[in-house]
Amino acid sequence: MEKVLPYIEANKERYLKELKEFLAIPSISSQKDHDGDMMKCAQWAADQMRTIGMESVQILPTGGHPLVYGNWLHSPGDPTVLFYGHYDVQPVDPLNLWTSPPFEATIRGENLYARGSADDKGQVFIHFKAIEAYMKQVGSLPVNIKLLIEGEEEVGSVNLDRFVKEHKEMLKADLVVISDSGMYAKGVPSICYSLRGLSYMEVEVTGPNRDLHSGSFGGSVHNPVQALCELIASLHDKNGKVTVNGFYDAVRPLTKAERVSFKKLPFSDKKYAKELGVKQLYGEKGFTTLERVWARPTLECNGIWGGYTGEGAKTVLPAKAFAKISMRLVPDQTSAEVAKLFEKHFRKIAPKTVDVKVRMLHGGEAAITPIDSPGVKAAVAALEKGFGKKPLYQREGGSIPIVVQFKNILGLDTVLLGFGLPDENAHSPDEFINLDNFFGGIRTSAYFYNELPSFWKGGHKRK
Amino acid sequence: MEKVLPYIEANKERYLKELKEFLAIPSISSQKDHDGDMMKCAQWAADQMRTIGMESVQILPTGGHPLVYGNWLHSPGDPTVLFYGHYDVQPVDPLNLWTSPPFEATIRGENLYARGSADDKGQVFIHFKAIEAYMKQVGSLPVNIKLLIEGEEEVGSVNLDRFVKEHKEMLKADLVVISDSGMYAKGVPSICYSLRGLSYMEVEVTGPNRDLHSGSFGGSVHNPVQALCELIASLHDKNGKVTVNGFYDAVRPLTKAERVSFKKLPFSDKKYAKELGVKQLYGEKGFTTLERVWARPTLECNGIWGGYTGEGAKTVLPAKAFAKISMRLVPDQTSAEVAKLFEKHFRKIAPKTVDVKVRMLHGGEAAITPIDSPGVKAAVAALEKGFGKKPLYQREGGSIPIVVQFKNILGLDTVLLGFGLPDENAHSPDEFINLDNFFGGIRTSAYFYNELPSFWKGGHKRK
Repeated sequence: MEKVLPYIEANKERYLKELKEFLAIPSISSQKDHDGDMMKCAQWAADQMRTIGMESVQILPTGGHPLVYGNWLHSPGDPTVLFYGHYDVQPVDPLNLWTSPPFEATIRGENLYARGSADDKGQVFIHFKAIEAYMKQVGSLPVNIKLLIEGEEEVGSVNLDRFVKEHKEMLKADLVVISDSGMYAKGVPSICYSLRGLSYMEVEVTGPNRDLHSGSFGGSVHNPVQALCELIASLHDKNGKVTVNGFYDAVRPLTKAERVSFKKLPFSDKKYAKELGVKQLYGEKGFTTLERVWARPTLECNGIWGGYTGEGAKTVLPAKAFAKISMRLVPDQTSAEVAKLFEKHFRKIAPKTVDVKVRMLHGGEAAITPIDSPGVKAAVAALEKGFGKKPLYQREGGSIPIVVQFKNILGLDTVLLGFGLPDENAHSPDEFINLDNFFGGIRTSAYFYNELPSFWKGGHKRK
Repeated sequence: MEKVLPYIEANKERYLKELKEFLAIPSISSQKDHDGDMMKCAQWAADQMRTIGMESVQILPTGGHPLVYGNWLHSPGDPTVLFYGHYDVQPVDPLNLWTSPPFEATIRGENLYARGSADDKGQVFIHFKAIEAYMKQVGSLPVNIKLLIEGEEEVGSVNLDRFVKEHKEMLKADLVVISDSGMYAKGVPSICYSLRGLSYMEVEVTGPNRDLHSGSFGGSVHNPVQALCELIASLHDKNGKVTVNGFYDAVRPLTKAERVSFKKLPFSDKKYAKELGVKQLYGEKGFTTLERVWARPTLECNGIWGGYTGEGAKTVLPAKAFAKISMRLVPDQTSAEVAKLFEKHFRKIAPKTVDVKVRMLHGGEAAITPIDSPGVKAAVAALEKGFGKKPLYQREGGSIPIVVQFKNILGLDTVLLGFGLPDENAHSPDEFINLDNFFGGIRTSAYFYNELPSFWKGGHKRK
């Protein structure tokens, strides 16, 4: 690293110049008239891979936009990293809300503004430059590396699942690294080591066999909207716990170390509530807000509808009412099992006055890369050296489907090494990457590859 | 009546022929291209009034379709009846579901099929013919009568309220008679003496200041859909009673006589439930189904919405949730007072984690014409004679806005003398009037005018 770091320092201006080139290509995957730009951008990424010393570089067709792949596999006995990122970006409208044009990267203050600067070209470029520095100065890498950069992340990675399934051998590795997320806050380097899963259900409550006049029939039958409300109301108890039978049975409890670590993060319930515009927060008793959102399973109504929802008054006693209800899951719950528990519970509590239907719409598993795993340990060490500050642990309440795909298909855990910031405007006008995070990211990325082998011991060795 | 009844008997064929003429005019008030038919129909009704001996017959313009008015006021000391009906009809689509053309009245079995046969031209015509029989045979009427036939009932009587307010002197009377409803069942003559009122509210529950990602935020704030469900669920207790504070305070209890009378009506909970397709009925404990629907105040959710309601899954934690909630009222509740009670209660039970808004959308008063009032007594006597069977008392769970308007503006109670049947297809294809009910209705109508003066004593005399 004593050779690598000065190189990074010396090439800052060039890095920025090249990044601006990368960002200048309007690679909007969702807009047909940018198909040419998509190919141009894939080409740029492939050229860049070759420049930094990657081998077997290829642009791989999918049903949609192509993937770019390259590798360097000359460090036998050391772990193999599968780095995943994406070169496609979100649309840019409304254009008039951008301070500077979205595809003319512009530095203002300590940030570089452009579409894709944080999500995800800028973060992909961070790894390119860390690898370049290593290759140019050392002549080799401390790990084996496979780079997989896709062009359809912003349109749901529609072809990725099949591609990964069909290229298991090509993508074989020891762990996945993704830099497509953010740090906890500016100046607070952090490592996200767990994501929640999901069981997404739809329920249908049927009362009478047709919409009734609420005057002529009101008081005779159980209104399905009321029945649905009663059912939903019963899904949480007074302490904010989910009442679905067996819901918490499989939950991996938070460790003391995790809870201690979360408490170190700068967080204020008061500020959080104010920012969301609520007078008072709500949730499961006995857990802090971050614990509830990151590491506890929850149940939310994502939607509800039934009866008359237009303007004014219509005196209907509706025949049906519906709700979308999803549960966020944590390790070691499984989405199929929780869906089953929910369905069983919902049917059980339904009164005889109505009929209920329950169906699962969607599911995904929670993910965890334990904080004592070599990948996370290496990331922690790298962040500390890259940013000069001990990183904190965090989890994330949402899901990242590709993380689950890599786990399911390739059996790999993912290290999320995010260099964005919470306010980076990832899908909005004035997207930016903080320059300290950009250069700190390059250093961290280099440190990560440098540190990984020493944390990778015994049974963790590459198969 | 010994002169009147044979006349009715002798003119049955002619009555049917004339009714067919009346029904042949496609007086669809909601369809612009029938404006000419509307005027033609008003003209027909005016001509008919003149033919049967009414005076001061006039077609009165409104902002929309005209009203037809006529009177006969030569029975000083006797009560004055304001008879209200309408000559406009519902649209007829889908035409292909009619067995015979909607404007070619056709007798099949014991019914006459045509649009407007029951609602309301047929029932208006019943009164025309009763009056005609009386006038032709007796040369005078036993009461004073004012006929008001409007052309906008099927489009919400949009101009009636103003007309009544502006013609209080013209419409001054002792009671209102309306024949625009049905008997309890075929062969079960009945008199409806009370309608429920309405307080229709809309509530809005706001949680966070924007839609949130249910993964990143689920577990931190009170989901407004959940909060709304909890609020709605709490509006009924385990016994099906409405929990709104003070809700039952003003309710006029059912008398023993009413409860006994309702029990005499042919009604089966099992059959009713089966017809509505529910396994079990629901409602306030301690009351029969008919009592609950007719004579007890109830609270229904007419609609609910919030969050994602489209196809598939969207992981949103919505900012807002809404519901339409209406309460059916009975004498002596008032809609304004109940709306106030509801708003106060709803605000009081709302948790601090959300904000609620409550607004009243619509209100109407309950109506009752006591069963010992002279109008109802006369109707009962007339029905018994007209149909040869003691009528039963019934109430109705819905509201009839014009009944409330006549009460509010003119201070008059209404006698609902309905000759339709529950299955008459009033707004659907194959609308019909039963011929026994038609001719029984003419006899009953004649008896009613004949009997009314003898029940009209002392303080009830015309002012």
